[in-house]
Amino acid sequence: MKKIVVLLSAFLLIINSVHSQKKTSKPNFIVIFTDDLGYGDLGTYGNPSILTPNLDKLASEGQKWTNFYVAANVCTPSRAALMTGRLPVRIGMESDTRRVLFPNSSGGLPESETTIAELLKTASYQTAAIGKWHLGHLEPYTALNNGFDYYFGIPYSNDMDRVEKYEFENYFKPDFKDFNVPLIRNKEVIEQPANQETITKRYTEESVAFIKKNKDKPFFLYLAHTMPHIPLFTSKEFVGKSKGGKYGDVIEELDWSVGQIIKTLKEQGLDENTYVIFTSDNGPWKLFKDHGGSSGTLFGAKGTSYEGGTRVPFIIWSPKNLKPKVEVKIGSTLDLLATIGSLAHVSLPKDLKTDGYDLSPVLKGENSNPRNEMFFYHGTKLFAVRVGDYKLYYYKNNPIGYPEKLEKFEKLELFNLAIDPSETNNIIDKKPDIVAHIQDIVSKHQSTLVPVKSNIEAVITK
Amino acid sequence: MKKIVVLLSAFLLIINSVHSQKKTSKPNFIVIFTDDLGYGDLGTYGNPSILTPNLDKLASEGQKWTNFYVAANVCTPSRAALMTGRLPVRIGMESDTRRVLFPNSSGGLPESETTIAELLKTASYQTAAIGKWHLGHLEPYTALNNGFDYYFGIPYSNDMDRVEKYEFENYFKPDFKDFNVPLIRNKEVIEQPANQETITKRYTEESVAFIKKNKDKPFFLYLAHTMPHIPLFTSKEFVGKSKGGKYGDVIEELDWSVGQIIKTLKEQGLDENTYVIFTSDNGPWKLFKDHGGSSGTLFGAKGTSYEGGTRVPFIIWSPKNLKPKVEVKIGSTLDLLATIGSLAHVSLPKDLKTDGYDLSPVLKGENSNPRNEMFFYHGTKLFAVRVGDYKLYYYKNNPIGYPEKLEKFEKLELFNLAIDPSETNNIIDKKPDIVAHIQDIVSKHQSTLVPVKSNIEAVITK
Repeated sequence: MKKIVVLLSAFLLIINSVHSQKKTSKPNFIVIFTDDLGYGDLGTYGNPSILTPNLDKLASEGQKWTNFYVAANVCTPSRAALMTGRLPVRIGMESDTRRVLFPNSSGGLPESETTIAELLKTASYQTAAIGKWHLGHLEPYTALNNGFDYYFGIPYSNDMDRVEKYEFENYFKPDFKDFNVPLIRNKEVIEQPANQETITKRYTEESVAFIKKNKDKPFFLYLAHTMPHIPLFTSKEFVGKSKGGKYGDVIEELDWSVGQIIKTLKEQGLDENTYVIFTSDNGPWKLFKDHGGSSGTLFGAKGTSYEGGTRVPFIIWSPKNLKPKVEVKIGSTLDLLATIGSLAHVSLPKDLKTDGYDLSPVLKGENSNPRNEMFFYHGTKLFAVRVGDYKLYYYKNNPIGYPEKLEKFEKLELFNLAIDPSETNNIIDKKPDIVAHIQDIVSKHQSTLVPVKSNIEAVITK
Repeated sequence: MKKIVVLLSAFLLIINSVHSQKKTSKPNFIVIFTDDLGYGDLGTYGNPSILTPNLDKLASEGQKWTNFYVAANVCTPSRAALMTGRLPVRIGMESDTRRVLFPNSSGGLPESETTIAELLKTASYQTAAIGKWHLGHLEPYTALNNGFDYYFGIPYSNDMDRVEKYEFENYFKPDFKDFNVPLIRNKEVIEQPANQETITKRYTEESVAFIKKNKDKPFFLYLAHTMPHIPLFTSKEFVGKSKGGKYGDVIEELDWSVGQIIKTLKEQGLDENTYVIFTSDNGPWKLFKDHGGSSGTLFGAKGTSYEGGTRVPFIIWSPKNLKPKVEVKIGSTLDLLATIGSLAHVSLPKDLKTDGYDLSPVLKGENSNPRNEMFFYHGTKLFAVRVGDYKLYYYKNNPIGYPEKLEKFEKLELFNLAIDPSETNNIIDKKPDIVAHIQDIVSKHQSTLVPVKSNIEAVITK
């Protein structure tokens, strides 16, 4: 009798699972976006101290991209690009003064822009933004104003609104009470200062709850972790867990969080119809030494348009839909809107002038190469350009980004990133044809740019 | 009828496979040892350009060690340490003049030393050394004199015995005919100069044949690839295959070779009873720019005792015996003799004064930590010491190794490798207790050293 019960239960489980997996033809999307996590911070990208078994598994079962870029080397413009598929300079989200929003900022992402959430709402997706927003904290710039049905998180960086005269050394033994950052649910501040020790755990719980609640509807979850941006915090369970110090503890809790998401998808029978993406908003903040992450083999850090500041881990997992591979083609967060739109069979707005490409043919294994170039802006200055394997630099900067030391080259520099990813061998004199080709592409690109009003410089006037 | 035949064949295949897997209780060992392959050269260790799907799979199905060291930063002493489990300074295999054997060398590995092959011969293993030997090419120093039943390969480095006045630039477009290196089968020179374009492929074919021939006996295969040591060559099929240039092509052919070995083990039903180890003899030869490999996130290169010169990829795969993991504990090629001995249940010689540890408890998942220190010699000078997470430097050197610029520190340097694997933050002033502890261990260690005659300085006198 026991056997029959077991068999019957197994049968019902299978039926239920088949039912769940087939409930909708629209796939779900989860974009996990970390803050200041570097190219070299995950095991699968070569970190020798920090253990990330869940992300390593995601990478080996999914697709691991090794030449994937954000469109800006700091937070606000990078997020604006991911959400809209547009270069920050086109939409007033890069400026040469303030490059990110602060608590006293009055601006944010222009209402005229279409976000991934707004795009998916046209196909009746359920949408949630959980985590750091940083695209405007006043109306009409919040997540709820930008296509998200639900919001839980902090409005800007976790090191903002700090106590006066905060010493640099304090970042290495921080108290979350020193940062008066609000934690918000939809429109309501539910905690201030946000308890950052439990923030990764609570974002995870919120994400799990959102997935469970929407298991029968197509959904888009944008989980933008506050960590590993300084000041660093973990929940109790992760204190001292990693060989990689406090920074390692933080990454290992993020890895745990990814594991919880995948576990939930499997439990809910959603793993076959969901695309999970993991990436980061810019390179590691090396100014903070062992509280900042690693660029691995790459040169540069957050705040620079060198490879270490802009190339990020990118893993996309959907085992039923995507064959595992390591992908060396160029991709960008700029491409997520067009790619997700394509995977969801949702048409982009007709008048959208996107800087993104639909990468879905590459994901599906076609030999195409939609993206062949990447423009690296620092504020409104074109710092560098990658075309194919080559990157041409117009400017140089302090390699750790802070303090910024932008300086225009009299004589440009050129690197072959395929054979020299660490950018040690300037070949500007050897490849005049390549330089001319890139310059030509730059001219064409710049002719499409029209000056726009900055949306991140304005401050609240009382 | 067709169906019955298919089913019967499948049944016989299973029977045969079960039979094969159980034929012996002694496990087989395959040690794949590459030449100058760097910590950052494989996908699973973070390389962004070179595709190594077979090694990535080996790492995810097996154990990937991230703090694994060779005992010397150049070829001959590193190989001596792997073979014997003894520090090269103990056995005359490091010297302050010549550090490796050359074609005119008359010495080699002392006969008094026990090699892994000799150890396993006591348990009737079939043994083969395929590839570069570099522990002496005259009697009594050859592989056949050191416990190997079969030898196929080159006796020393593939850039030796080159034509006179060879220009540095020529290494970047080499002709194998410019290097008068012999290819030897057992005692017979079968080709001179060795055709290096097909050498990786032929080593692979020889390895596959050896495995097949010995499928019913326990065997030890030492496959010491000639590549990716300069001059670089691949077979036709790999020319231009990789995004990572010629160096990438070479690594991708090595990865193919690993795939062939694993495929053969599976076909022969030997995968359950074989341990496959993949590692390298020292860091990348960065002097040769894009024809040298990458240290990834580590500092330094071949010819230095910095991390980049001595920490190497190490993967051990035996899915039936070892649970997959990333291991951050310290290990060394010095430990292979004791570890293989333990896994094979073969006792070490009673009078052996080994510098190695039996790592099998760590492999089997026990929480032990047999190795807590690593001594880094450069010639007979103690360049640096790692104890736990900390590495203390007595000397500095040219970070790319060549030309050598050894200089003793007036004031020592200390790094915490766990949180600072790239060695950017010297903390010598902050940890006097750690420094004292390490100095104490060094004193004890050095009291065990007795001066020995060099076995690599002597040259042939006619």
